[in-house]
Amino acid sequence: MRVTAFAGGIGGSRFLLGLRAAMAADRPGAPPVTVVCNTGDDLTLHSLRICPDLDTVMYTLGGGIDAERGWGRVDETWTARTELAAYGVGPEWFGLGDRDLATHLVRTQMLDAGYPLSAVTAALCERWRPGVSLLPMSDDRVETHVVIDDPDDPAGGRRAIHFQQWWLRHHAELAAHEFVQVGVADARPAPGVLDSIGAADLVVIAPSNPVVSIGTILGVRGIREALADTAAPVVALSPIVGGAPLRGMADACLSAIGVETSAEAVGRHYGGRGAGGVLDAWLVDTRDAAATVPGVDVHAVPLLMTDAGATLAMARAAIAAGLSGRR
Amino acid sequence: MRVTAFAGGIGGSRFLLGLRAAMAADRPGAPPVTVVCNTGDDLTLHSLRICPDLDTVMYTLGGGIDAERGWGRVDETWTARTELAAYGVGPEWFGLGDRDLATHLVRTQMLDAGYPLSAVTAALCERWRPGVSLLPMSDDRVETHVVIDDPDDPAGGRRAIHFQQWWLRHHAELAAHEFVQVGVADARPAPGVLDSIGAADLVVIAPSNPVVSIGTILGVRGIREALADTAAPVVALSPIVGGAPLRGMADACLSAIGVETSAEAVGRHYGGRGAGGVLDAWLVDTRDAAATVPGVDVHAVPLLMTDAGATLAMARAAIAAGLSGRR
Repeated sequence: MRVTAFAGGIGGSRFLLGLRAAMAADRPGAPPVTVVCNTGDDLTLHSLRICPDLDTVMYTLGGGIDAERGWGRVDETWTARTELAAYGVGPEWFGLGDRDLATHLVRTQMLDAGYPLSAVTAALCERWRPGVSLLPMSDDRVETHVVIDDPDDPAGGRRAIHFQQWWLRHHAELAAHEFVQVGVADARPAPGVLDSIGAADLVVIAPSNPVVSIGTILGVRGIREALADTAAPVVALSPIVGGAPLRGMADACLSAIGVETSAEAVGRHYGGRGAGGVLDAWLVDTRDAAATVPGVDVHAVPLLMTDAGATLAMARAAIAAGLSGRR
Repeated sequence: MRVTAFAGGIGGSRFLLGLRAAMAADRPGAPPVTVVCNTGDDLTLHSLRICPDLDTVMYTLGGGIDAERGWGRVDETWTARTELAAYGVGPEWFGLGDRDLATHLVRTQMLDAGYPLSAVTAALCERWRPGVSLLPMSDDRVETHVVIDDPDDPAGGRRAIHFQQWWLRHHAELAAHEFVQVGVADARPAPGVLDSIGAADLVVIAPSNPVVSIGTILGVRGIREALADTAAPVVALSPIVGGAPLRGMADACLSAIGVETSAEAVGRHYGGRGAGGVLDAWLVDTRDAAATVPGVDVHAVPLLMTDAGATLAMARAAIAAGLSGRR
């Protein structure tokens, strides 16, 4: 059984641990899951190209993650960052560890040498062996910017800041008027992305941020069409449980695009495949069992990734829901 | 009294400590020494621009050097390098410490933003306050390559490798046929370099490598002419004592250009100003007192930088020799 999964960073990575475990336990002969990963959070810092979601997936599945924080390397040291601060050089809100730095150095060196991000990611995964086929959604540069009220403009003007600045520095507390995914309209899917959707027996959308992670992937040219055309069922898991995000600040993102922070509203935002949307099945938490999405099978199961067993059960429920809805 | 000094890395930096001390003690009101520093050893590693000689001068005079090694930062850690090795990414022969990395990150970020190397160096020196005015010889890229026998060519062909590879990886043990200073013919002196030579009361050439440090500086367009034209006396200190380099592998460099490894031969290689060379005075060690250089005052004084006192005495001797020969 060939499975393709869409994922962002921390929440997506945890779910992928369960999905990888479910496939290993229940479909031992199956090929590795293909992961299509958001790159809209990527940024350039100190001339280094940093891909937070790709790295979080790679470190999490490769055993190098700091599990407490959910991002970055375990046993990290911060010498270079302390030295940057001694030069008066920020930003202090981005956690650039010494171990993590090596990943960015290798990536930047390869990108500068002309390798596409997908080839760089494959090279980095030679070390981490995440047990999935990890693909960036695109080799082209896409960067999510956030339109906020300009705090420096007494006339009430607006300005756009990088998503990471809004997310990490301002903790998504500045009201977002809009997300601008710079470059997404021209971005082509990375090699393998469309093929993996077309050839899949199941497409799973992880419980990642529906706006700035999954929404960005869906904005890449051809990906929505590939989901519409594939023979595979498409199942997604709600990142909203009981009216609040599982983790992170997805509510602030949903508000900006006028979607209520509820499992039902997010399911309706994704929409059913029969009506121009992307879903065949929608998994919500048991406390959201009343949710309905026109044309979509809604399944209510526990959706809290409290431990490996719970996450494995979620993944199994997603696979079962997808396959039960096969058309 | 305005003093301009030419210097390379480790030996040059140590001498500059003595020169700075001599000026502070004997000419307390004088402006800071202007240091024109070699950049021909610069390299790009993991997309970062690294300037070993500038950094060695900056760290040494700024109190951040690892004095035992003579290069890099004191209390250095090596986490990123260990991680790079885990990715299978070298080169293992270049010592890229975590503290040092921050310097390269700031430099590369500023260069990418369009600042010239001289402005970057000034910004880095805001932190280090080296007590001299530190200038790269040029803002243009110059890189010394070394022509060697190609070990992979059974037909006996030659190839060029970066100076750092020859110096650090091969310890200058591969016979050098030639040094090619890529870019030097088009390199313009950095802002302030020619003016500082023209306005100087004394020019001092540190006991640095006469081929790949001082020789590279002298290759930059207009610098030889500025030395020929300045009213200031030009005094140099021999890096060769008793037929061997004070430190480093200058003998291998001298062999490549057909100059004997002796204080006299290096003095003659620099040459007297009256005969198209650069020197008014040449300081050799007491054991080389028999050396003669046509048209140049040769002074024999102890030239071993064994401690701060000896280095201070050397600097005082250089100043005195220069001033005594004022024309």
